[in-house]
Amino acid sequence: MKKGIFITIEGGEGAGKSTLIELLSNTMVERGISVVTTREPGGIPIAEQIRSVILDRSHVTMDARTEALLYAAARRQHLVERVVPALERGNIVICDRFVDSSLAYQGHARGLGMDEVRAINRFAIQDVMPDLTLYMDVSPEVGLSRIAQAAEREVNRLDLEKYSFHERVREGYLMLLKQYPDRILRINAEQSPEMVLYDVLAAIDHRFAGFFATDVKL
Amino acid sequence: MKKGIFITIEGGEGAGKSTLIELLSNTMVERGISVVTTREPGGIPIAEQIRSVILDRSHVTMDARTEALLYAAARRQHLVERVVPALERGNIVICDRFVDSSLAYQGHARGLGMDEVRAINRFAIQDVMPDLTLYMDVSPEVGLSRIAQAAEREVNRLDLEKYSFHERVREGYLMLLKQYPDRILRINAEQSPEMVLYDVLAAIDHRFAGFFATDVKL
Repeated sequence: MKKGIFITIEGGEGAGKSTLIELLSNTMVERGISVVTTREPGGIPIAEQIRSVILDRSHVTMDARTEALLYAAARRQHLVERVVPALERGNIVICDRFVDSSLAYQGHARGLGMDEVRAINRFAIQDVMPDLTLYMDVSPEVGLSRIAQAAEREVNRLDLEKYSFHERVREGYLMLLKQYPDRILRINAEQSPEMVLYDVLAAIDHRFAGFFATDVKL
Repeated sequence: MKKGIFITIEGGEGAGKSTLIELLSNTMVERGISVVTTREPGGIPIAEQIRSVILDRSHVTMDARTEALLYAAARRQHLVERVVPALERGNIVICDRFVDSSLAYQGHARGLGMDEVRAINRFAIQDVMPDLTLYMDVSPEVGLSRIAQAAEREVNRLDLEKYSFHERVREGYLMLLKQYPDRILRINAEQSPEMVLYDVLAAIDHRFAGFFATDVKL
């Protein structure tokens, strides 16, 4: 059934995920590769509505487990309506955040436990795991100062979290790197966007050499 | 911590849950017992918003797993904000539907599997299980004809399901009765409301004799 390649981009706030995805997508399109870029909730109306519940700044009483279940619900709907159909068409799907975000944010940083959060996400995604996950690693100092500078970006509930929360998020990602060494690759995201792109292209080329070999060399 | 009693009322469409809860609550109040009646989402803004996503009739693409995760999310928030505080105050909490609804509807009737749905609900409710669950048993014929007659009740997405779905819901509940014989009690809900109330009061009296013994006899 699945013929495409599923790549997820992960990282804390201000890691430069959006910039990377734009550059990466443009590069692939230039080289004639069919690529679908998306992010949860990805314009899927049901998932959009779920996300608006999560990010509503008035929801100060939201319990951490409620939040984790809502992320899993939005993920499920986006996966079913957008990701899986694109993979079945044979596209490369590049997704901004996926299951590792929940493991790092809710599982580790909020202290719900990675195993518990993994269990509800297994229910949500069943066996659809990324073929490759790029972890855009920046220190919270660099990430948060980038956000503060980007004035046009709307500040949501998560941005307001304490600094220590962002440190725990990073800690969670570094734990995931150890748990899934074959799937997750660390990218030094404190470099310039061009250097990040260079590292990412090299990683994709190395990982999926067979996929591109016949027609295009990344 | 927990000093109250947690009673849940379960059943298919048109089983007469709302009528029972009103009669039961009035009877308890007359006898001087502190009772809190509630139903998910119970006026909890976050849970109300989640429920509106679930019941929106335009959401025809909603995946069954998305739905199950949303129910678990709304349940969590309602539990944390309403049920647990009332139990901690020592109240009797009577809740219209709880975890068994998800097991019967999503787990069995929609075919997701009871064990899988139980796992995400365990994440949601942790160890807060009802002390007693009253399963209001009616055949789908009786239940659905009651709904058709009650013109003032708004028809939602679930009411529009095929008849066979409601049969599978009942089947699910009957399986739960076998799995949790100590917690769940079957009530013949095809009787008059007064006879249903009589059976329910007798059941509560029998189950919680010690709780009421010193002051009020139900």
